[in-house]
Amino acid sequence: MTDVDPATPALDAIRFTAEGLVPAIAQQHDTGEVLMMAWMTRETVDETLRTGRVCYFSRSRGRPWRKGETSGQVQTLKALRLDCDGDALLLLVDQVGVACHTGRRSCFYLQAETPDAALTVIAAPEADPETLYGPKDASS
Amino acid sequence: MTDVDPATPALDAIRFTAEGLVPAIAQQHDTGEVLMMAWMTRETVDETLRTGRVCYFSRSRGRPWRKGETSGQVQTLKALRLDCDGDALLLLVDQVGVACHTGRRSCFYLQAETPDAALTVIAAPEADPETLYGPKDASS
Repeated sequence: MTDVDPATPALDAIRFTAEGLVPAIAQQHDTGEVLMMAWMTRETVDETLRTGRVCYFSRSRGRPWRKGETSGQVQTLKALRLDCDGDALLLLVDQVGVACHTGRRSCFYLQAETPDAALTVIAAPEADPETLYGPKDASS
Repeated sequence: MTDVDPATPALDAIRFTAEGLVPAIAQQHDTGEVLMMAWMTRETVDETLRTGRVCYFSRSRGRPWRKGETSGQVQTLKALRLDCDGDALLLLVDQVGVACHTGRRSCFYLQAETPDAALTVIAAPEADPETLYGPKDASS
């Protein structure tokens, strides 16, 4: 919970977990819509800052995940920010098409009204997942 | 990576980590500003949905953390959303005052321009941390 010293080089200021990961929130830069949350490693933060194209780390596949590499729904980086204690990132991005593998613009399309009630689906798909990924592999 | 079935009761649809935690992003409901990221447990999600006042779980203190309990900078819940696979939450909130313990509105005030350069401080404090927390304990 120590505050980050702004004089620290960016990559050294990030506090990765024991597994070498940091959570990253992607927000559409001009509308403010929160699109998704995923994970990054030191390597993928470095690549993202150098290339300007967002690259996460897929925990399920155990490898870097260049957002849109299968679907074409890439994210261009507008700004990368750390929070006060360096253990979370906010990416301001320009999202091509949709962020969610379900074809929705945002992954946060399920709303909880009460602890025990079913969820409300608040957004419809804007793209067909099979068009984005083909009939089977809906994973990037 | 299985999609959440919307028919699932809200608390059961959330996929907590092995430690019983889920990351929660707080976004100001009317401006879209991302204020902070913190962690919640099943117990604190339940409390938040029932009371309408946001309660996180402090990993460092090992107990529920009712945002603003020391500082008065409370968050009122406007909506609680899950992402497609249920392992992240988005809280739309109305933040009283400032979200960050440094006195800034948002915790995401450090911008990385390149991997190796020092960070840029992009926001100034709007409140004095000592006024919020007293001279020593700047922790809630």
